[in-house]
Amino acid sequence: MVSEIDQLSIDTIRCLAADVVQGANSGHPGAPMGCAPMAHVLFSRFITANPKDPNWINRDRFVLSNGHGCALQYVLLHLMGYDLSMDDLKQFRQLHSKTPGHPERLETPGIEVTTGPLGQGICNAVGMAIAERHLAAKFNVGEYKVIDNTVYCIVGDGCLQEGVSAEASSLAGHLKLGNLIVLYDANDIQIDGSTDLAFTEDVMKRYESYGWHVQSVDDGDSGVESIAAAVENARKEVGRPSLIKIRTTIGYGSAKEGTEKVHGAPLGDSDIVSVKARFGFGPEKYVVPESVYDFYNQCSQRGQNQEAQWKQMLTKYQAAHPELYAEFERTVLRGELPANWESSLPRYTPADPPVATRKLSEAVLNAIAPVIPELLGGSADLTHSNLTLWKGAKTFQHEDTKLGSYDGRYFHFGVREHGMAAICNGIAAYGGLIPFASTFVNFISYACGASRLSALQKLRVLYILTHDSIGMG
Amino acid sequence: MVSEIDQLSIDTIRCLAADVVQGANSGHPGAPMGCAPMAHVLFSRFITANPKDPNWINRDRFVLSNGHGCALQYVLLHLMGYDLSMDDLKQFRQLHSKTPGHPERLETPGIEVTTGPLGQGICNAVGMAIAERHLAAKFNVGEYKVIDNTVYCIVGDGCLQEGVSAEASSLAGHLKLGNLIVLYDANDIQIDGSTDLAFTEDVMKRYESYGWHVQSVDDGDSGVESIAAAVENARKEVGRPSLIKIRTTIGYGSAKEGTEKVHGAPLGDSDIVSVKARFGFGPEKYVVPESVYDFYNQCSQRGQNQEAQWKQMLTKYQAAHPELYAEFERTVLRGELPANWESSLPRYTPADPPVATRKLSEAVLNAIAPVIPELLGGSADLTHSNLTLWKGAKTFQHEDTKLGSYDGRYFHFGVREHGMAAICNGIAAYGGLIPFASTFVNFISYACGASRLSALQKLRVLYILTHDSIGMG
Repeated sequence: MVSEIDQLSIDTIRCLAADVVQGANSGHPGAPMGCAPMAHVLFSRFITANPKDPNWINRDRFVLSNGHGCALQYVLLHLMGYDLSMDDLKQFRQLHSKTPGHPERLETPGIEVTTGPLGQGICNAVGMAIAERHLAAKFNVGEYKVIDNTVYCIVGDGCLQEGVSAEASSLAGHLKLGNLIVLYDANDIQIDGSTDLAFTEDVMKRYESYGWHVQSVDDGDSGVESIAAAVENARKEVGRPSLIKIRTTIGYGSAKEGTEKVHGAPLGDSDIVSVKARFGFGPEKYVVPESVYDFYNQCSQRGQNQEAQWKQMLTKYQAAHPELYAEFERTVLRGELPANWESSLPRYTPADPPVATRKLSEAVLNAIAPVIPELLGGSADLTHSNLTLWKGAKTFQHEDTKLGSYDGRYFHFGVREHGMAAICNGIAAYGGLIPFASTFVNFISYACGASRLSALQKLRVLYILTHDSIGMG
Repeated sequence: MVSEIDQLSIDTIRCLAADVVQGANSGHPGAPMGCAPMAHVLFSRFITANPKDPNWINRDRFVLSNGHGCALQYVLLHLMGYDLSMDDLKQFRQLHSKTPGHPERLETPGIEVTTGPLGQGICNAVGMAIAERHLAAKFNVGEYKVIDNTVYCIVGDGCLQEGVSAEASSLAGHLKLGNLIVLYDANDIQIDGSTDLAFTEDVMKRYESYGWHVQSVDDGDSGVESIAAAVENARKEVGRPSLIKIRTTIGYGSAKEGTEKVHGAPLGDSDIVSVKARFGFGPEKYVVPESVYDFYNQCSQRGQNQEAQWKQMLTKYQAAHPELYAEFERTVLRGELPANWESSLPRYTPADPPVATRKLSEAVLNAIAPVIPELLGGSADLTHSNLTLWKGAKTFQHEDTKLGSYDGRYFHFGVREHGMAAICNGIAAYGGLIPFASTFVNFISYACGASRLSALQKLRVLYILTHDSIGMG
């Protein structure tokens, strides 16, 4: 049974998303209409965030990895009370609007990362989960859980076909990121048609092979309580990342539902009218019943209350652990480098003998790593060639491995250049940390899809690329 | 029990590979020494190829995906009697030699594809297996199996961490490529150290999730018959690609065996002497016992005989199916375009109205696809945007899917740009076919690792990249 307000909210989201896409006369209505129930469940019941302070560091993170479905995310942010008005929704896909055709980190309050190129978002989510685990290990003391949040991500079939998502998901399983919950919108449709054309692998089994906790929800078009129960289970599973496969119908409600025709083109006016009729709405555009606004206002209040409580705790934390707080304040709240960090840098003069650039990089890293504790990173399995492992570095690992712990700052990314870069984007987007990624300069070609997004989002990700010439370097 | 000649051959390969790397004073001895048994089994018992005619179209293909281990491949090619002398082996990693530091398609007889950047080789092997299945479907008639070969590939842990290999492996499972056999050198070591640092997924289960046939060999350092039995099983499994996980010891025989220290640096003279003593050899360098040459000469003879028989069959095929033969001769044997194909191209004049470039691409494709039957390709799930599906095109699928068949020429690659490009490299490297790959121009950044290798190998892969400007294009 779905409660009246849940149903009305979901139907409102579906109709509003369809209107938003139709208003632009371009965009993707299919995913928003299919994912409306799971997004509604996440935002109304689980995600702890304060729309009035979108940058609160201890908010839960939400990533829409299938970013083409961003009409969904904009509608949810609007309902939650982020600074995203109905007029903004009407500006969907217009130049300089706050609602571009794919989610843009720097344009819209509440958007954590720029997504669209498939596979990136889930990797960013892995990076965010890593950042959360690291900061929690570094700053939490006893009852003071100053960092304690969950990363939620919605992915589509396309994201899971991209190799970059496989790289990051394998590493997430290895790292036992129990704070990561991925909802897989399994609608069996991709642009070319049925997933039967090219994607018939057993995704659940694959994620099990990575060491994830996997669950399945069959009634994703209507099963609000099934979705919620699965998310609850996933939240209880703190030793492994979670994948919840949710069976949905793309473009649910449209005359073209369940087909690729509803993926990337507006429904058309007559189909929209029929969709609305099916959900008990009139033909008016951009309608949100007051009861839905009221309901979401209550949901939003939850996050505001949580932040208020967190701030009270932080005050006590400051008193109880002044040094830790000072570090937390500098790195996480202000994001500033320590004073005089430059004085640690090695000095060279023209009289010094020539040194390979990667050796100089190593010298710099050894000099600054101790004084910039928010610096962390690693190599895609070329540590001893990239010279990135500074003296005394501790490895980021789940402590069960006995190879390191979550407060470690050195990463063994495996031979996964693309995943590494996308994960570092997520770490940087989380805040409070400065990640670096390293490989041979040539292999950055493997990671171009993600390094491009580092640049577009102005994310503070450092790339240490060695062996830049035949004579090494 | 390992026969005397098998053991002597394997030990010879190990010592010779170690000498080759030591001679260059750089390179990777670990993989060659660990993979010597599986490579010996493949070359001595299974791979059908004629070293005197390395381009025979119906040869089995062998790809060393962990290309840094190429000393192994060079040694095997030398033993088999390819045009690769002991002097060539002594020139390992020297400028302009036939034995560069990674296998280069255009430099060395018997090298099918350039490998080194991890993950590419296994994807090329998938492409070759596709090419083989397509040409077999197109040209074989009854008893005339003019194309009937197997693609063998050795991969390491690193290859299986790369997302590109995941993309191609998922597609290979979907396409049920029963002619593809991958031997996974599972030595638990990567450059940074133990695979426990970053790669603890269940690889076997992952490949099962893709729909592959998987087997495990525990005694890969010595179990010649275990390896051979697994390959036999894999050959019998014609409905699925096969993965054989073979447990090995990297640098087997070295004092540093089983550690990352033996991965990417020469053993050093004293270790080499001790390795040789362990295997019953004296300290002399570059030694091949005559009995090993003799044995490999017999193995090589098998391929020569097979080609001779194939040529006899081809003569009969020519008589029985002259039109098919003519097409086979033009496309596969000569690799020439049909006469006057250009006359099919559409003509435009400055008086014609402006047309989007992707529409022009579509017009060209529709014009030439019927007259150039060796042209085949597809899109990474953007078919209707890239406009690559020509009228009347049939889809390349296993016929069980009822969505197409192996004689189809249109590919639904899924959302897998990198895998698509690497697969197309393999199709082109196979010969007789002209593959094209398509996506939005921007997403070529996902595929840079493979498109770079298209260029380096001068492979005839066409890229159709649309939407190259804000105004589309």
